[in-house]
Amino acid sequence: MSIDQISPTLIIGAGLVGASIGCALSEAGAVVHLKDRDRSHAIVAAGRGAGRLEDPDPSEVKLVVIATPPAVIPQLVAESLERYPSAVITDVGSVKARIASDLQALRINLARYVGGHPMAGSHQSGPLTAASELFVDRTWVITARPENPQWTVARVRVLASTCQARIRELDPGEHDRAVAEVSHFPQLMSSLTAARLAQVPPEDLRLAGQGVRDVTRIAASDVTMWRQIVSANTTLIREQLVALRDDLDHLIDAIDDPRVVIDLLNRGNEGVRALPGKRGKRPGEVVSVVVEIPDAPGALGQLFARITTNGVNIEDLSIEHDTERPAGYLSIAVAPDRADALRQLIREQGWGLRS
Amino acid sequence: MSIDQISPTLIIGAGLVGASIGCALSEAGAVVHLKDRDRSHAIVAAGRGAGRLEDPDPSEVKLVVIATPPAVIPQLVAESLERYPSAVITDVGSVKARIASDLQALRINLARYVGGHPMAGSHQSGPLTAASELFVDRTWVITARPENPQWTVARVRVLASTCQARIRELDPGEHDRAVAEVSHFPQLMSSLTAARLAQVPPEDLRLAGQGVRDVTRIAASDVTMWRQIVSANTTLIREQLVALRDDLDHLIDAIDDPRVVIDLLNRGNEGVRALPGKRGKRPGEVVSVVVEIPDAPGALGQLFARITTNGVNIEDLSIEHDTERPAGYLSIAVAPDRADALRQLIREQGWGLRS
Repeated sequence: MSIDQISPTLIIGAGLVGASIGCALSEAGAVVHLKDRDRSHAIVAAGRGAGRLEDPDPSEVKLVVIATPPAVIPQLVAESLERYPSAVITDVGSVKARIASDLQALRINLARYVGGHPMAGSHQSGPLTAASELFVDRTWVITARPENPQWTVARVRVLASTCQARIRELDPGEHDRAVAEVSHFPQLMSSLTAARLAQVPPEDLRLAGQGVRDVTRIAASDVTMWRQIVSANTTLIREQLVALRDDLDHLIDAIDDPRVVIDLLNRGNEGVRALPGKRGKRPGEVVSVVVEIPDAPGALGQLFARITTNGVNIEDLSIEHDTERPAGYLSIAVAPDRADALRQLIREQGWGLRS
Repeated sequence: MSIDQISPTLIIGAGLVGASIGCALSEAGAVVHLKDRDRSHAIVAAGRGAGRLEDPDPSEVKLVVIATPPAVIPQLVAESLERYPSAVITDVGSVKARIASDLQALRINLARYVGGHPMAGSHQSGPLTAASELFVDRTWVITARPENPQWTVARVRVLASTCQARIRELDPGEHDRAVAEVSHFPQLMSSLTAARLAQVPPEDLRLAGQGVRDVTRIAASDVTMWRQIVSANTTLIREQLVALRDDLDHLIDAIDDPRVVIDLLNRGNEGVRALPGKRGKRPGEVVSVVVEIPDAPGALGQLFARITTNGVNIEDLSIEHDTERPAGYLSIAVAPDRADALRQLIREQGWGLRS
């Protein structure tokens, strides 16, 4: 594998994902050209080292990466196949089967189109925070189809490897089913739950704790992007929603029957356990010590420096915010036999211990 | 207000909440007696300074705090009213109206029973991690009823104040509606969503990211406790579930109509915004820098010490875990104009920058 296989690359769409890919390829020595409907994005991306602004010689382009919003991907794939005759065309859209089927319906030869989905989770958009490290150790799904010659798939593998992602090859339909189950369906459940909160009296919302905030966090996601993702995968998402409705109907009918509630709660426990976790560590093997975070520069750092000096190993961290005054709480997870030492340390520092 | 008003106090149920209340009252100088069906809990709690194991003189007890699982609260309230004739009886259960109505149906005089609900969020149970600081700055809802004389409510206010909680008085029905909306309903939505994951093929779960983990985190909660909470508040929870089902039905019928999807996503955005947040700060006013956390003792502390020394103020922190190897990522939120300085610092340290 060599970076020459994909140099020069043209990136269409210089948002966070496109610009970050550009940074990674440029650092690896590839010539990268950037294009964006909004030229300011391309300029910012180029300023971050993602590539150059000049148009490439169309006959020389070896790889085109389409990193735009989902709705315009099919059209850009079609145009790119025609305009860049020696290039492999890939994209970063989060739904795959429909792109190919839409284009096949137009009798377009898709031998040189190989779909991709780099799964880098970030809520930010725009090239301002682009970084070549965005994809390191993240999964990059490549959805090759039988009609793709080996050499076309190889170029997309070079792209993903250069970004230091973990490559996973999946059939486009398999990919779409998996993301419907673990991404699109949970997104809509979060939105449905949060939509109810908009109807709740403000004084009741004052009792909201961390739980409801976790459940609804992704309901704050970008509406335009998610509308496009949902539109491209409706059939598989609907299957999940219908299955959930069966459970919901049963719960509404029988919420007074403890066996029904217990069964649901148990299945929820099971579902969480089924998610691949951190080295299989179970909750309960650590203890959380909660300290109030002083709202002053440097305070957090002083605390950690002190913890380190005293040889307490931090297993996990999380922050909760105070809703009524400018304060936050840091929950520090440590081995159960270290918790008292940590509490002692926090007290000695004069920090506000909370549990 | 004086601690003498509630000394001696009897705490029934020496789990995390009961033992932590005991620690706070003992530190403030109250005599505290501990009782637990499982005597080992009472012993551990006493060892942590939560109180003493001997039975009190029933005629002298001024306050009884029932900190047991929800299902046994009504019976213990009834027994305590009889056994401790000068005491005010309170509890820490998360559903309030039904306790009073169940007992009123038995024609029990509830003048000396004043309900309470300290909202200290912790997933841990058992007295091993009890700490007097558990309730500091947390909301403690007191659900007095018209039949409670002033002096009975005053004793529960002394209890909550001594624990340094923020007191909020609510009608029991208002309290139950609020927790149905912001706690019980989101809990069941999380369980319903997670229950579907238990049906998903393991290879599909490998594509799960942080979003689905957030939505389903509380679905890992204790089944027995939540079964009891749900059973005590079915009517108000069902109302929420029915309202959600209307939205879900509409979505399933019209998922191919972008306007319907956009409307739902927008309402989800709105619901998240409605939750009281940290000083009204909007996402986007900070930038997240992600660093791989080395899996070695002290590494995190060194990093923070270095950040502090360089005067970068940390606005927020979160951790994501790698699902395939023993690694985690720390996302450090800083002001946008500090992000590059922080990245530079991380690179200089030789840490693995991820974005």
